[in-house]
Amino acid sequence: VQVVEFIRSVRDGEALRTEDIQEFIGQIASGELPDYQATAYLMAVYHRGLSDEATVATTLAMRDSGEVIDLSHIDKVKVDKHSTGGVGDKISIPLAPLVAACGVPVPMISGRGLGHTGGTLDKLESIPGFQVGLSQARFCELVEELGICLIGATEKVAPADRKLYALRDVTATVDSIPLITASILSKKLSEGIDALVLDVKVGRGAFMKDEASARKLAESLVRVGTGAGLDVKAYLTHMNHPLGTTIGNALEIRESLEILRGEGPADSTELTMALGAEMLVLGKAASNLDEARLKLNDAVCSGAGLALFAQVIEAQGGDASVLDDPSKLPTAPQTTEVCATRPGIVSHMDALGLGMAAMKLGAGRVTAEDVIDPAVGLELLVKPGAKVEENQPLVRIHHREDSAICHASVHENITISDAYEGPESIVIDVIGI
Amino acid sequence: VQVVEFIRSVRDGEALRTEDIQEFIGQIASGELPDYQATAYLMAVYHRGLSDEATVATTLAMRDSGEVIDLSHIDKVKVDKHSTGGVGDKISIPLAPLVAACGVPVPMISGRGLGHTGGTLDKLESIPGFQVGLSQARFCELVEELGICLIGATEKVAPADRKLYALRDVTATVDSIPLITASILSKKLSEGIDALVLDVKVGRGAFMKDEASARKLAESLVRVGTGAGLDVKAYLTHMNHPLGTTIGNALEIRESLEILRGEGPADSTELTMALGAEMLVLGKAASNLDEARLKLNDAVCSGAGLALFAQVIEAQGGDASVLDDPSKLPTAPQTTEVCATRPGIVSHMDALGLGMAAMKLGAGRVTAEDVIDPAVGLELLVKPGAKVEENQPLVRIHHREDSAICHASVHENITISDAYEGPESIVIDVIGI
Repeated sequence: VQVVEFIRSVRDGEALRTEDIQEFIGQIASGELPDYQATAYLMAVYHRGLSDEATVATTLAMRDSGEVIDLSHIDKVKVDKHSTGGVGDKISIPLAPLVAACGVPVPMISGRGLGHTGGTLDKLESIPGFQVGLSQARFCELVEELGICLIGATEKVAPADRKLYALRDVTATVDSIPLITASILSKKLSEGIDALVLDVKVGRGAFMKDEASARKLAESLVRVGTGAGLDVKAYLTHMNHPLGTTIGNALEIRESLEILRGEGPADSTELTMALGAEMLVLGKAASNLDEARLKLNDAVCSGAGLALFAQVIEAQGGDASVLDDPSKLPTAPQTTEVCATRPGIVSHMDALGLGMAAMKLGAGRVTAEDVIDPAVGLELLVKPGAKVEENQPLVRIHHREDSAICHASVHENITISDAYEGPESIVIDVIGI
Repeated sequence: VQVVEFIRSVRDGEALRTEDIQEFIGQIASGELPDYQATAYLMAVYHRGLSDEATVATTLAMRDSGEVIDLSHIDKVKVDKHSTGGVGDKISIPLAPLVAACGVPVPMISGRGLGHTGGTLDKLESIPGFQVGLSQARFCELVEELGICLIGATEKVAPADRKLYALRDVTATVDSIPLITASILSKKLSEGIDALVLDVKVGRGAFMKDEASARKLAESLVRVGTGAGLDVKAYLTHMNHPLGTTIGNALEIRESLEILRGEGPADSTELTMALGAEMLVLGKAASNLDEARLKLNDAVCSGAGLALFAQVIEAQGGDASVLDDPSKLPTAPQTTEVCATRPGIVSHMDALGLGMAAMKLGAGRVTAEDVIDPAVGLELLVKPGAKVEENQPLVRIHHREDSAICHASVHENITISDAYEGPESIVIDVIGI
């Protein structure tokens, strides 16, 4: 059909034909379609939504607008994890080697941080020498040899999504469940995976602030991912407080190593194990979650996960000796502690506020062009629920210049009161078909 | 506010600040705003609408994006009429001189035809020599001297509307009441008028196919026009059948002259009188509609309307002798009659179908670039409700080349049955505040 007629159908919430969706997305990728028609389409989708069938067709058309990696020669179930983004979320880094060490290949293509949320690529690059820009051939090789490779997307992956995402950002159409779904899944499907575990964050530091909308997104991701041929589970997890005890790139690598050693904080360790167990089950390396957890524990205790991480660091040009000597990681010249001004129970540590504070310190980006300082960040010396004395250190700021503004901002984002009513578990719910 | 934040407010149906609307529309006119943000805004307005306050602010900002004619030195109430477009709608042509002859200045800026609907400018240009492209200064002069001038809009009038209209056309956002309202009124307000009579057409040949949506548009035009400082009345009128007995440019000039002489068809004469009477009342040239009709009748019977039309034709470079000798108007080389295939009552003459048939004959434009043939068109020899014999001529086709396709099309669009249940009156309702 004509482009205007296609936009009108979307505008009126009518059923769309797969071939019309393919043609439209193809024209976006090729640059044939004027941006002004693409954005009218985006705002129409924002208001009317898309059916699951149409979202599947859109996702597949977006995937097929670019390079799709073929890993079918690897005779195993390839599984990846994707998180919708949070503060202190370094889970991919310990997770991928642990899962791969248990025999499930993890072809992982990650992103960079923007705003208050960090990015796996930035964290990996704080390891001296680590290269995230490998060729597709080398990526396939490492997935085959080691069962793991950790890279960033090239411009050739899902160009239709890249184009639409840039337009969504400037037309107030980011916040649409079918558009988010198609964007996430089109990129993940380009990796050549068979199964996917999604970590949909909920709360102050997450894209989805409330559980209802996070659940809607998770359900959409599961339905559409399944429709696109993936085995998918979505985990709804808490993101009111930062995950683990570090925010900032090299600091989060240190915490990742702790998790790999079985010495990590309770919440980030638990989430690594929960998501990892699901990946093992989807990857047919365990028949149920309990068995999967035992295998992951073995990979921690035996040091197999850590050893595999050392191998992948070396294979990707990095200095694996940081594993034995984390002081070789970038280190901030100064540290300053933020202390409790009263005794009591730490009842809230605001993920958004602390993420913003770390970003302003240089650990994150305000705009996509900003350069990150890998050394700086925040180290949480206590977690919500902790009982603290007056003047007890709460957060250690790792900084390069004056930390006064950050100090004030950290203070503002920590609440001490007389009780903590936090969640028992980091995982709220698991959604599957 | 930032552009993205403004689009988000529109997207969410929030109250908008006048200064934000002014800035946004100003950026559209200046070309600062990328088209892709303008179209996201248009689709957001399509779905969420705009409040009357916001539509008033948008209308005024669109008016102020271009030249606004100042007629304040003419110490009378200046009144114009605007129709939403129909088939056979030549009302402006007899109406303007009749109203002006009664002492109400009519500064009329009209448009061209597109698709099945004709345009006043095209019809006027079928008078040999008639110029519709006068300067603004000459326009003001003629309104002052004669009380009437009939021109087209320059590119300097409401450029923000021009830009948005072109974008609406290619993004399925034409059909939005606040956007239609702002588009119509911004251009009319640029004429320097004080009052406006709107003819909102309803039916097969109209933009609004059903009475409910036409009524909504009429009410919006009245509320927003009033909010923008105009005295406004809107007439809802029938457009299931062509208006009057002619479709085609020179043919419609002939019918206009008949109306000015008091010899026109019942429906087009009645609509001229109804709209004209309202214009006289709004223009303070009559205290009520009955008095206004008497004055208009006088202008017909005395020949004052026709004489003023002769003056304006001469003043605009045209050959006024066509009034005495209409055979000087462009005349098609051939005529062919379409006859009844059965006896009965003419129950339907489809405005859309007959308008399309006339367009294909050359009387109208398929695209804006097409050149019109002023001579060709359709002459209705009967009107709906007429009792006809078999083989009685129904329509005379005025054509240049073979008329076979038009002949078939005219046939298809006329229904003869056993009864006619047409409307009693051309006017459905009058809407004012």
